[in-house]
Parts: sequence; C-alpha cells; structure tokens
Amino acid sequence: MATLSFIKNPTLLLDEHIAKNNLDKLIQKLKKQQIIFRPHFKTHQSAEIGEWFRERGINQITVSSVEMAEYFAQSGWKDILIAFPVNILEIESISRLSRLIKLSLLVESLETAQTLEKSLTNSVGIWVKIDVGAGRTGILWNATDEIERLVRYINSTKNLNLLGLLAHSGNTYHAQGIQEIQNIYFEALDRLKSIKGFLESMQLEKIKISVGDTPSASILEDFGEIDEFRPGNFLFYDVQQFQAGMCKMENIALCVACPVVSIHKDRQEAVIYGGAIHFSKDSVKLDDETLAYGIVVPIMDNGWDANHSVGYLKSVSQEHGVIRFYENEIDNFHVGDIICILPAHSCLTVHAMRDYINLDGKIISTMNSKG
Amino acid sequence: MATLSFIKNPTLLLDEHIAKNNLDKLIQKLKKQQIIFRPHFKTHQSAEIGEWFRERGINQITVSSVEMAEYFAQSGWKDILIAFPVNILEIESISRLSRLIKLSLLVESLETAQTLEKSLTNSVGIWVKIDVGAGRTGILWNATDEIERLVRYINSTKNLNLLGLLAHSGNTYHAQGIQEIQNIYFEALDRLKSIKGFLESMQLEKIKISVGDTPSASILEDFGEIDEFRPGNFLFYDVQQFQAGMCKMENIALCVACPVVSIHKDRQEAVIYGGAIHFSKDSVKLDDETLAYGIVVPIMDNGWDANHSVGYLKSVSQEHGVIRFYENEIDNFHVGDIICILPAHSCLTVHAMRDYINLDGKIISTMNSKG
Repeated sequence: MATLSFIKNPTLLLDEHIAKNNLDKLIQKLKKQQIIFRPHFKTHQSAEIGEWFRERGINQITVSSVEMAEYFAQSGWKDILIAFPVNILEIESISRLSRLIKLSLLVESLETAQTLEKSLTNSVGIWVKIDVGAGRTGILWNATDEIERLVRYINSTKNLNLLGLLAHSGNTYHAQGIQEIQNIYFEALDRLKSIKGFLESMQLEKIKISVGDTPSASILEDFGEIDEFRPGNFLFYDVQQFQAGMCKMENIALCVACPVVSIHKDRQEAVIYGGAIHFSKDSVKLDDETLAYGIVVPIMDNGWDANHSVGYLKSVSQEHGVIRFYENEIDNFHVGDIICILPAHSCLTVHAMRDYINLDGKIISTMNSKG
Repeated sequence: MATLSFIKNPTLLLDEHIAKNNLDKLIQKLKKQQIIFRPHFKTHQSAEIGEWFRERGINQITVSSVEMAEYFAQSGWKDILIAFPVNILEIESISRLSRLIKLSLLVESLETAQTLEKSLTNSVGIWVKIDVGAGRTGILWNATDEIERLVRYINSTKNLNLLGLLAHSGNTYHAQGIQEIQNIYFEALDRLKSIKGFLESMQLEKIKISVGDTPSASILEDFGEIDEFRPGNFLFYDVQQFQAGMCKMENIALCVACPVVSIHKDRQEAVIYGGAIHFSKDSVKLDDETLAYGIVVPIMDNGWDANHSVGYLKSVSQEHGVIRFYENEIDNFHVGDIICILPAHSCLTVHAMRDYINLDGKIISTMNSKG
C-alpha cells in the first residue's frame, strides 16, 4: 500500500488507464460509422480530463448547465452544446457565451425560442428536444403539429440556426438486458427518423439526429442513421452499469477510498468514514434485492482489486457509511485500514467528491474544486 | 417578487427569522432543565450562522469531522466535540487541534483508545460511544464487560480524560409519532443510566450522559437526567421532520428556489433546473406512499408561502427535477418562473448547495463554499 498510503479521509481515486481505455473503445466504435462524438462532460466536470478527449481529436462537447459551459469555454472548448432545456433566466450568460464560442442549445417550446430570438445578438445552434419515450422532458415525438410549429418558427428567425432533433433515452438506464436496450434505442431512433422525414418532406432544411446514453454506447455495435452521439458515464462506468450488464467490474475507473473507523464482527459490519456527502444517494439492487450504495473491494498497491468484492455499502448517513461484509471477509479488515467503494452512480459521486486523485497521488481538479 | 428577482439558477434561500425562532425555542426548553446545549453544527456548516449561537451564550459545539472541527476552531470555537468514531488516520490533525482547543472525541474500541494515548501529547476529552438501539455504531449497551474494559483503560491513561457515555438515537428519525419517539428516547436513556450506574458503582469517576436528536428535541418537554444535548437539524427542519410531525411547514427555514424550464400540462408536470446535485437524494413518503424529494411552494416577495403546497418533487437526475403539480395548480406557473422546493432533508441539501442566500439577498458562506 506504499503508493496510496497518503489517503487519510474519503478520497476519489481515479485509475486513468481504465478510463482512457473506456474512452478509446468508444472512439473506435464511433469512428467506424463516421458518427460525430460529442461526449457529455457532466460526468467528469474536469478541464484536465477534458484534455484526454482533445488529444484524441475530439472538439465538440456536451455539458448540462450554463455554468459548466462557461467553465469549459474558459479551457478553450469552442463548440459546446448545453443539453438542458434553456433556462431563460440565464439569458445574459447565454448571450455572452454565444459571442465567444459556437454554442448550441436545447429548445422545446415556442416561448423559449421567441425569448432567445428577441434577446440574442449572435446566432446559436438549436436542437429541438424530443421526448422519445423517457417521459422526462421534450416535445412528445408524436406531437407533430407542435414540432412543426416550433421548427417553422426557428427557421423564420435571424439568430436561431436549426440543427435537428435531439433525444436522450434515459429509460435505457432502467432496462433489463441487452435486448431491451436495443429495442428502446431503435424505437427511439425510428421515432426521430419519422419526424425527420416529416420535416424534410416539407422542404425544411436538412435535419440532424443527436442521441446518446451509456447503455446504448456500451452494447450496440451499429448505431443506425444518426449524426451525433453524446454519452457521458461510459468514461468511468459504475456499479449501476455493471449490474445492468454494460461493463465489467474491471472497467469501473474510479472508487472512493475510505477509512474504516469501527468494526462490528457480531453483525459482519464495519463503519467507514464515507457517507451521503461523498457518494450522494444513488443505489443499486443486488441479486437478492438488497439495496446497495456501492460495492466494496480491497485496496492494492496500484489501485484496487475489482474482481474481489468483499461486501457492499449498506447504508449512508451524512458522514457515516455502513459496510456489510460477505462471509469471513471481515477478518481481513481493521480499524485504520482503507477500503475502496465502487460507487452506485459515478456522475453523482464525482460531483459530490469535487476532486480526483490519480494512482500516482496527483490531484485532478474539477469545476467544483474547493480551490 | 421584487426582492428575490436576483435568482437565476438553483439558490438555497434561508429565512433567518424562522431559523432563529427554532433556535430560541430549543434554548428556552433546555435552559429550564439546566442541560448543556452542544448543538450539532453539521447541519449548517457555516461560521456566520455559528455566530447566532455564540450571541445566545452557546460556546460548546458538536461537529462530524476533523475538517469541520478545524473550520470552526478557526472561527474561534474553543470547545468542540467531534461526534464521529475517531479516524486514527487523521491523528496528526487531531493532535494539532488538541493543542489549540478543548477537544473531545468519540471512542468505541480499545485499539483506538490505545492509538490516541500513544500519539497525543495533550489531553482530550473522551466520550464512550454506546449503541443504545440504533444499530449504526458504538459498543452495544449491554456489552458491559467491553465497556468496563475500555473505561478502565481510559482511566489509566495520561492524555485521555473520560467524560462519559454518548449515544445518538438515530432510530427516532424512522419513528411513527410522538409516543414511539418518547419510548425510544427513554429506553435509550434507561440503558445509558444502567451503564452509568454500573460504572459509578465501581468507583469510576462521575460519568456524564450526552444524547441528542431532532425528533426528541422537538417533542419532549422533559429530557430526563442527561448532562448534554446535541441536535442539529432542528435549526432548519425539513419535509422529513414535517412528515414525522416534528414541526409545522412554517418552521422549515430554508428552500431551494429553482427556475422552471419546461411545462408539461398534459401530465401536470414541470421540469425545473434543480436536481440531485442540489438536493442530494433523500426522500419522504407522502400520504399515498408516493416518494417525494421535496414539497413545492410558491415564492413570495419576502420568502415563500409555506402553507400552500402546489406539488412535489417527483424525481431528480443530475441537474433536472420533475415537479408533479396538484390539481389545477400548474396553470399558475410558466417557463422562467421561480418556484421553491422545501427539501426532504435539509442537512444534505445545505451540504450540496454550499452557500445560502438570505431573504435580503446576502450570501452566507459555509465551509464548502466555492470561494
């Protein structure tokens, strides 16, 4: 444990090698089909990690807030999509960004489009957000009148430059198995293509299609006729993606290393310094329906032993976590040891932890670093 | 909406008047019984809010991490209890703190006590952490041999100054109704008193009792024979405490003000800018067993309308929240409006939001502020 002996409190450990492998794998897949890769940077939120993408020739990115767009614009990114329904209260910041970079936005109502046209002085790209079945937000895919009205309005404006249709099949995250994910993906794509056909038949200009989620990114080989793909989580993966069959345990690129502060042998449990403020509170269901906030693996000299689960994170309060060990495993752990927790949901854990430390002990900061 | 018109993105609004009322009420209650009030500062995590307590004569506080103890020590707090099982990996910071302030710690194993004695050069106060039934951590209340062994060891040391027995009845947070909370509280107290009696009968010096949780703080009038009381959440309360009957809606002292970014009238829903990174992911069950991450109320000129719930926060992803409105309420809301969400769990929401803004628009920072 020589190299990682600096860990004294909950620490987000990043194995860069694993993450870069996940990245290279997806880049290869998308290159074959000449699909634009516009990765979602909300997963890592780090200018330094962004450079890994830039070194690999990627120059278009997705973010989930105006604040995140500003942060990455400052790091030299020139083509940014904010994949969140436009918050018109932030119009001043949006306007400022539109003068600095090639900015694209998500619109799903006429009133928002009108506000943008009225307030902006520079042109921005506009994606019409379509709800293809996930039911979170967007215009319903079969509300053709509403879509046509919005698209015609956008085409009539000076500053809004129609790019196409954008969807996020968030329901793939709850899908059971590869077949269901394929079904969701291609049903969504059919729906988008039907709108695209309808709009193009009306002599509206070329309509592009942008989709992207990590389950589809992980299991599909052929993404069909899309123009742009925007997954985020694939970079790190997590226990949710492992449980869903989207990755192996050894593809999970980060963990939270936590000190053991108390051992309760009678109930095969340990208390760690590591709770809801470190992991957030997403969970997975284990095979026996038990809820878990993460999977526990031993720390090693050069990272963690992904294929040797010793227990799971059973509960979290503000700073406390309770580990339930599998049979006989507890005997290998003591107060003052560090154990590694592969998180249920890496995006929320990264946001909560705010800084990474790589396996060489180097801090990698994010837009949320304490500074 | 004149005074609060500065809100453009998710903003943690604090009504200082409500919070100070919650504080004054508990101070009065504890004063009558001459119990030491050692409030838990993990709820607010703010030096500025700490001053409200100091102005009211409080000079002993509770925190939940070494980092939090360091932060409040820097703001001039001289008597701090870290109510978390000692993380021996942080021994250097603990040792440094013990030279600066009157520090007390939680110990629940002989090995931790031995490490402290070996490593510290200054004396610290020691509370023995007892599990009185909550089952999270501590020595089980009926493991008298183990308790005696630890207490005898502490009494034999140079630097460890035994203060007494400490417990946290975390199970009151899941209790149904006043009677069950009373039962849990007094059962816990009986268990602590039986250990205290046992220890004192062995001519071990005077043993104090420290307890404290917000449900008990809220509904009990008589706390029995205790020396010290340490609740935290009572300052702000939240929807969990409201649902449990511990406070009224108008006693909840904070909310997250969020922009509406999309309206879906067909399903009586709106999408807000405000998600898991703002609220964390604690929830409550509403009367019909629906899960809610918060309760939605309208914003007003001088705060929010606590007694006019218009819906609930049905789901949260990273930045998105989905509001389900009650019947006919959706017609009063539009894209670009600000609505207020009273959070399920205020402690985690404060930690996630990192800064407050009071009703005069003044920023109140915390130890997690971006700076």
